[in-house]
Amino acid sequence: MFLYTKNFDKQKEKAMESLRRALAENKVDRDIIPLLKKINSLPCYFTTSSCSGRISVMEMPYFGDKLNSVWLGKWHREVAPEEVVEAVRRHSSGQLWFLVRSPILHVAARTMEDAVELLNLAIGLGFKYSNIKSVSHRKLLVEIRSTERMDVPLGENGELWVDGSYMERIVGIANAQVRRFKGKLKRLEEILEDYGANHIQRSR
Amino acid sequence: MFLYTKNFDKQKEKAMESLRRALAENKVDRDIIPLLKKINSLPCYFTTSSCSGRISVMEMPYFGDKLNSVWLGKWHREVAPEEVVEAVRRHSSGQLWFLVRSPILHVAARTMEDAVELLNLAIGLGFKYSNIKSVSHRKLLVEIRSTERMDVPLGENGELWVDGSYMERIVGIANAQVRRFKGKLKRLEEILEDYGANHIQRSR
Repeated sequence: MFLYTKNFDKQKEKAMESLRRALAENKVDRDIIPLLKKINSLPCYFTTSSCSGRISVMEMPYFGDKLNSVWLGKWHREVAPEEVVEAVRRHSSGQLWFLVRSPILHVAARTMEDAVELLNLAIGLGFKYSNIKSVSHRKLLVEIRSTERMDVPLGENGELWVDGSYMERIVGIANAQVRRFKGKLKRLEEILEDYGANHIQRSR
Repeated sequence: MFLYTKNFDKQKEKAMESLRRALAENKVDRDIIPLLKKINSLPCYFTTSSCSGRISVMEMPYFGDKLNSVWLGKWHREVAPEEVVEAVRRHSSGQLWFLVRSPILHVAARTMEDAVELLNLAIGLGFKYSNIKSVSHRKLLVEIRSTERMDVPLGENGELWVDGSYMERIVGIANAQVRRFKGKLKRLEEILEDYGANHIQRSR
């Protein structure tokens, strides 16, 4: 038997305190703030971390070595091919990758029923990789995540494997993915607006 | 309150029946069969679906449209660049992608404690994207999944965007990913061998 329900209010208080700090220090992706506020206004949930989704150019010693990876460019929006080319110019060593990552939201839930309700809502809105990320005495954590993703090797140790026209192509595809996941985030925000209203009605 | 524990034995019986059918029809990736047998020999788990991981070349109208996607080549092993080039030659329309996907195992658990035990075991062995995929009256489902992945656009509507030497490069990276996830599957199999033995000792 896990004790996350018993610890929910205390953990939410802590999480809200560190969110306030992160907001004050401009450490939260700006375009996801309204959604975080909406989720945190609901009595059965709170957010613990989030990313609004991004396109990036990254240099890493080998695939998956996050610790020694360096971002040469990172954008939480559509990009122009020139921005990517400029980031690629800064490449010097290791594997060079062009990456797209979907938004990720980590949301703690009060009960398993609350977790499953949010999970199914998110999947229904197109966040098909959503899941319950972890269960412990401290927290029951839902991960909201979508399918958009690109992992394209561009070169290695200073050598470039692709040309400018290829980069233009992949930027086009990446931007389409960004538009798609931004749309899903928007719909989630709208649905939670109604959800909050319904929930308050139900508890009356 | 979810009733998956109450329904576990009946659901396991059904799943074992359809696994036997799939095995008889050669519909299960061969190199993952010993692992499936090991998991299904444990009293608190059963598998519902699985893929041992793969490299593929795929044609799709647009990214994410699985329904209308066509595999031009699919391998549950390391590949030679020539195999990929040959698959690419069959491309005619839509977006052309080179893909790597990590192994995925769906495992139903008897109780939430059993689910979390397997989840944490899998994460500890490097299956870092493992999660609880769904919770319902029928089933409590753990997804075992790793981080290896590539999504590389190669061309569109019959036009190729990359050359042979680029395909050789990405095949090299993909093969390294295959070696990595095969190693993780092997370790999971070994650990579950011990786990099974321990569990039987515990229940005596």
